[in-house]
Amino acid sequence: MIAEILCVGTELLMGQVLNTNAQFIARRLAALGVSHFHQTVVGDNAERLEDAYRLALSRADVVITSGGLGPTVDDITKRAAARVLGQELVPFPEAEAMVEERFREYGRPMLPNNRSQTLFVPGTQLILNPYGTAPGGIVPAGEGKFIVHLPGPPRELEPLFREQVEPWLAAFSGRALVSRYIRIFGMGEAAVDEALQDLELGDNPSLSPYCSTGEVQLRLTASAQTEAEARLLTEPVER
Amino acid sequence: MIAEILCVGTELLMGQVLNTNAQFIARRLAALGVSHFHQTVVGDNAERLEDAYRLALSRADVVITSGGLGPTVDDITKRAAARVLGQELVPFPEAEAMVEERFREYGRPMLPNNRSQTLFVPGTQLILNPYGTAPGGIVPAGEGKFIVHLPGPPRELEPLFREQVEPWLAAFSGRALVSRYIRIFGMGEAAVDEALQDLELGDNPSLSPYCSTGEVQLRLTASAQTEAEARLLTEPVER
Repeated sequence: MIAEILCVGTELLMGQVLNTNAQFIARRLAALGVSHFHQTVVGDNAERLEDAYRLALSRADVVITSGGLGPTVDDITKRAAARVLGQELVPFPEAEAMVEERFREYGRPMLPNNRSQTLFVPGTQLILNPYGTAPGGIVPAGEGKFIVHLPGPPRELEPLFREQVEPWLAAFSGRALVSRYIRIFGMGEAAVDEALQDLELGDNPSLSPYCSTGEVQLRLTASAQTEAEARLLTEPVER
Repeated sequence: MIAEILCVGTELLMGQVLNTNAQFIARRLAALGVSHFHQTVVGDNAERLEDAYRLALSRADVVITSGGLGPTVDDITKRAAARVLGQELVPFPEAEAMVEERFREYGRPMLPNNRSQTLFVPGTQLILNPYGTAPGGIVPAGEGKFIVHLPGPPRELEPLFREQVEPWLAAFSGRALVSRYIRIFGMGEAAVDEALQDLELGDNPSLSPYCSTGEVQLRLTASAQTEAEARLLTEPVER
C-alpha cells in the first residue's frame, strides 16, 4: 500500500506557513509502516489541484490532503476531488450537526457558506472534528483507492490523524517498519560512507547517511509483516 | 517566469527532517516576485527523481532543488538531472579547488567519493559554497530553462540562495510582488469572507483569508513591474 501527501494552500507557496503537516503525516506513515514516495504542495487553484489529484491517484492508493476545508471561496480541496472523481458533493446530516454544534460552542453565528463544510462525495466516511469547524473525510476514489481530507491547522489535523485516520490506515496496510539511528563522532560523512557502502546498497534493511552538524547520523530501516520481525532485521550481528 | 521547488531526500519522506528549505525558498521567491505553483518532495530514488524533473521542467522555467549533493551513494540529485538532460557530468576544476580547500580547512581527508561533488553538467554556472563541502550549480536545461542545485543543510542553502541565486533570479524575472497583512479580531472567518467575497475573487490584488487562532488574517497580494506600482495596488482606497 502506497500513500501520498498533498498539501493545499497558497500560504504554503507564499512561504507564510511552514509545512509541519507534511512532516507530521510522514512520521506517522513511517511509524505505521505505510510507504510514501511523494509530497506535493499546490495553491488554491482548481486546475492545478485537479492535476495534482490525478497524478497522485495514478501512483498511490491513498492520497492524504491537508488544508482547504474552510468555508471561504478559495477552499477548494473537496470540490476539486469531487470533480476528478466525477461526483457531486452532497450534504451529510452528521457533518451538519457537528458544524452547528461547533458554532454553538464557539458562540458564533453559522453562516450560509459554512454549509459547504458539510458537503462530501456520497460514500465518504466522515472524520468528525471535535477541534474545529471543518469535518474531514475518507473519500472512496475508485479502484480501491481513497482520498483522505484533513483540515490544515495542525492542532486539528494531528489529533484527527492519530484518532481517526491511523486505525483506518492500519487496517488497510499490514506492514511494520522499524528505524534505528546510529550516531558516529570523529569521522566525516564520506569516510563513514566509504566503510559502509555495501550496506547502503541494501534494500531491507536500508542504511542511509544523514548529515548533521558535528556528527554523522545513519538511519537503518527495516520493514516486515510484524514489528518484531522488522526489529530483528535492525539488530547488530557479528560479521 | 515560473519557478518550482523540488526537495530531495528520504529523510523528508520519513518525517525525520522538517522541510524548512521549501518555506525559505518560497518566501524569497515571493519577495522577488517570482511565481511558483508547485513544491515536490521525493526520496533518494533515481527513477522517481527523474520523473519529478521531467514534470517540473514541463511546467516551470526554473527548477530549484535542495539536497542530495553530498558524497554518499544515495546523493543522486545531480546525476538524475544529467540523465534527464541527456548530459554527462564532468569535473569542474573550480569546484575541485573549493572542495579541496574546504577539507583542508576542516582538517579532514578528502576521499575519492568527495570527487563526485565536483562534477556538473557542462555549461553549469557553479555556486561555490563557503559554508560546506558541496558546491551547487545553475544548470542549463534547454529551451531557456534551468535547474538550480543547492545543498540541503539550511545553514548552507539559505546564504547561498540569498548571495548567489537571488541576483541571478532577479535578472531573469522582472516583476515585483507586494503583500500586506490585515488582522481582524472579533469576527469569524466565514463572516469576514462573506463581507469581502467580491475582493477575494479578484486577481491582482488577490485577497486570501488565512485562518489563525483567535483572529482572522487576510493577505492582500499585488504584483507589478516595480515594487512602487505593486505597493500602490495594496493601498487602502475609499469606497
